[in-house]
Amino acid sequence: MSVVVLAGGVGGAKLASGVQALAGTDLTVIVNTGDDLKRHGLLVCPDHDTVLYNLAGLDDRDQGWGIRGETFAVADQLAVYGEETWFRLGDRDLATHIVRTARLRAGDRPTEVALALQRSLGIAARILPMTDGIVMTEVLTDDGWLEFQEYFVHRHQAPEVHEVRFRGIDVVRPTPEVHDALAAAAVIVVAPSNPIVSIGPILAVPGLREAIAAARARRVPVVAVSGIVGGRALRGPADRMLTSLGHDSSALGVARLYAGLLDGFVLDAVDAELASPIAALGMTTLVVDTVMSDDAGRVRLARDVLDFAARLVGEDGPPGRRR
Amino acid sequence: MSVVVLAGGVGGAKLASGVQALAGTDLTVIVNTGDDLKRHGLLVCPDHDTVLYNLAGLDDRDQGWGIRGETFAVADQLAVYGEETWFRLGDRDLATHIVRTARLRAGDRPTEVALALQRSLGIAARILPMTDGIVMTEVLTDDGWLEFQEYFVHRHQAPEVHEVRFRGIDVVRPTPEVHDALAAAAVIVVAPSNPIVSIGPILAVPGLREAIAAARARRVPVVAVSGIVGGRALRGPADRMLTSLGHDSSALGVARLYAGLLDGFVLDAVDAELASPIAALGMTTLVVDTVMSDDAGRVRLARDVLDFAARLVGEDGPPGRRR
Repeated sequence: MSVVVLAGGVGGAKLASGVQALAGTDLTVIVNTGDDLKRHGLLVCPDHDTVLYNLAGLDDRDQGWGIRGETFAVADQLAVYGEETWFRLGDRDLATHIVRTARLRAGDRPTEVALALQRSLGIAARILPMTDGIVMTEVLTDDGWLEFQEYFVHRHQAPEVHEVRFRGIDVVRPTPEVHDALAAAAVIVVAPSNPIVSIGPILAVPGLREAIAAARARRVPVVAVSGIVGGRALRGPADRMLTSLGHDSSALGVARLYAGLLDGFVLDAVDAELASPIAALGMTTLVVDTVMSDDAGRVRLARDVLDFAARLVGEDGPPGRRR
Repeated sequence: MSVVVLAGGVGGAKLASGVQALAGTDLTVIVNTGDDLKRHGLLVCPDHDTVLYNLAGLDDRDQGWGIRGETFAVADQLAVYGEETWFRLGDRDLATHIVRTARLRAGDRPTEVALALQRSLGIAARILPMTDGIVMTEVLTDDGWLEFQEYFVHRHQAPEVHEVRFRGIDVVRPTPEVHDALAAAAVIVVAPSNPIVSIGPILAVPGLREAIAAARARRVPVVAVSGIVGGRALRGPADRMLTSLGHDSSALGVARLYAGLLDGFVLDAVDAELASPIAALGMTTLVVDTVMSDDAGRVRLARDVLDFAARLVGEDGPPGRRR
């Protein structure tokens, strides 16, 4: 049963690894590329690589990003050479960026390069960049428009975000692989990633929403998991970003952003009172523990989400048709 | 007193570090770039970097190349990704190649990039690429034409070399920095590097021999040190290469290759009997211990060479005029 997960970084990677434990090679993750950036002339794809290392079992659980047991010999020497050090890349992680950059320069498509990296790490699932084109997420702050990682890493998400844009989004297209994955999907899951800057760019790729709508028309259930729990983002600036952009920093606020896209919405038990207003948006709701504090938690949430999606099809007829 | 040293890799780096101990900021090293190669999309400049690490005091004395205490985390991960591993780059060394490649892509000239790397490592001397153009040393073997590092590293210098060519050499030019260094030189030293594939490319840069001749015409002494001692190369394939290309594998064979270029020739005490036939080529000879087994040995040879060069000017009038 083909499962497609739309994902950003850490939260998406955790849920994806839980789904991989259940679905194995039937999992396809479509990842945000709007956070990608050049460092030291190398292309870094933070969301792809976070998912990659998670699905390969290499992820650093303590930090929440990067590779477990990573070393920083190159980064230290780059600093000696006067390179900017705010985006500090580990040694093994750098190998990923070196190989990616070399193969892109040799003419391979970003998707081909990503799939080759994944095969080398022996992961069961496939991770697809949302597009082979170039999209740059930027946020408007009191200091002007900032590239996403400048805001996220260099400025520690401190500036208030007044507006978000995805530069280049109008001219990119989903890849054939993304099209095929959505066309073959039996379930589509929107991961508990930042709805504005992680899921937002994916949904903004021209044709992506239409492909999801086409899947729903074929009775493929589409479910999202809230990354906001008790009004707070478990990680990252999603809560402050929702507020400063005029949304509710709550599971309800997230659900409103996805209105019209989803059949089902999964929210945490601490937010149970929001189930009713979310249902009023036209989604079926599932209230469970959504915090993935260990491997068992990842698999448990994955199973809850997939079972929920299966029930959406089984009980109510075509999900796209339901209230 | 400005000293210019023409150098390849290890032998040249050792003598250059001895000269730097004496001349400090008055030393300019002009290095061979014909061995440069792309690995994993990064530009590696083996001769420049060997001299760089030596002059920075970072060189690995046990290996004879690379950085002391180097680690190989990136290389190990590159191997996981299926990259070719025969040219194994250390982590700190990779930082050099990453920075170089990024700055070249940003539009800096190779010479500017090299000088910035040197400043970052705090070295007193300047190391100048022989040209900012692209030259590729290739050797003809029974397996056809091979890029130099393919022959040197990948095939362990095993194939017999029938011919050597420097692709691109006709269209490159010495940089303004190389011109200025030779124009300002008080002494020019040809290091005990491979005369065919280390010094050969430097002398083959159009205009380089003429610039050296112009210096000699100004009474600037030009002296070379034999890298062949007792008929053998202290390191590398120079001895076998001299033989297979029809030259003598001896200090005399080296001196013949430099005939017309030099005022003085330094050979090792074990080759003392060759002093007379070398002198017959029109060079003054110096017979000393040329093996640099430690820092003291490097400085001792550097002092012997510089004193010898000074005597060449002092005793005999314009070196360019002498027999």
